[in-house]
Amino acid sequence: MEREPTIPGSIRPGGRTARIRDAVLRAAGDLLAERGFAHLDLSEVAARAEVGKTTVYRRWRTPAGLVADLLVDMAETSLPHSDTGSLRGDLRANADLVANTLTDSRQGPLFRALIAAATTDDATATALHAFYDTRLAEWSPCIESARARGEVPPGTNPRAVLSAVSAPLYYRILTSSAPLDENTISAAVESAVIAAQTGVFVI
Amino acid sequence: MEREPTIPGSIRPGGRTARIRDAVLRAAGDLLAERGFAHLDLSEVAARAEVGKTTVYRRWRTPAGLVADLLVDMAETSLPHSDTGSLRGDLRANADLVANTLTDSRQGPLFRALIAAATTDDATATALHAFYDTRLAEWSPCIESARARGEVPPGTNPRAVLSAVSAPLYYRILTSSAPLDENTISAAVESAVIAAQTGVFVI
Repeated sequence: MEREPTIPGSIRPGGRTARIRDAVLRAAGDLLAERGFAHLDLSEVAARAEVGKTTVYRRWRTPAGLVADLLVDMAETSLPHSDTGSLRGDLRANADLVANTLTDSRQGPLFRALIAAATTDDATATALHAFYDTRLAEWSPCIESARARGEVPPGTNPRAVLSAVSAPLYYRILTSSAPLDENTISAAVESAVIAAQTGVFVI
Repeated sequence: MEREPTIPGSIRPGGRTARIRDAVLRAAGDLLAERGFAHLDLSEVAARAEVGKTTVYRRWRTPAGLVADLLVDMAETSLPHSDTGSLRGDLRANADLVANTLTDSRQGPLFRALIAAATTDDATATALHAFYDTRLAEWSPCIESARARGEVPPGTNPRAVLSAVSAPLYYRILTSSAPLDENTISAAVESAVIAAQTGVFVI
């Protein structure tokens, strides 16, 4: 990626380039959350970000290119895994993070828009899958620690355990008008914990 | 709903109306699976169904109206619940049904398109949630039978158990490029069985 030289007073090297990217990705995320991928227009993103249209077209080229970079940024800036000392505690922290994201007034619609876009656009699907892959890799040490503590059997697949926690939360917001409530969150955590302890995820 | 009188030689009363509906919903499902909701055009549906454009516009009015009726038809014609004599057997049958649907070359893209459409269109969201509500109600007797056999504790929520089986399958196809494989299906069934037995879904 092209970098500007350090600008005095800027937060980090390449300040101007980074600021442009931040503003453009913020505007793209806002527009996706508001209206979905089908209406994502690069000129409108540029206008909202107060960045030159040419800059946006030259750097991101297409709406799919912009969404792919947004997902890279989301993966880079998302929260690190917990280390509460127990599998249940770590999975609960992960469930809370997912639930807070999915019910957030901006992040919730944004994730729904990204999942929807991935169903029709192959480049977005690749970028979205890479995002989830990064998240699963980031949180896998929680399951490895549980294994080291003897909470789960050898060979337990970290990604399968973590997916078991997230899946019911996504399923709820995509297939139901009922709220993503505490019962759903705690049932997701408890069933993942029990199933992991029992060796269901030794796969 | 308007019905034609019985037509001699037709399969059922209102044969012509029913045949038109079948053809239109089939074409709508095909187009949704191929290109998604954003490109669903009533004139194109009419042409593909070999039905007059006026008929389609008068009866279904909008793409969302057409999708809502498609979901009503899908709920009406979807397979009844299993009765294998065990919770594990019934949940496995349900998981196989969901997995076969999601990996089918037509039904898979169709479901992805419907889920995507529901993220941007409120009427489609209402219709999609009603579809899943009907499916959960249809399969709930499996969990009530398991309760009667003493396989799960009193107060077990049938919808929570059934959602626990489906959720990992949907999560896999929406967030990953990895295939919906036997490991994922059997882990979904086993964790739902174990969690249900343990009382996690008494909620």
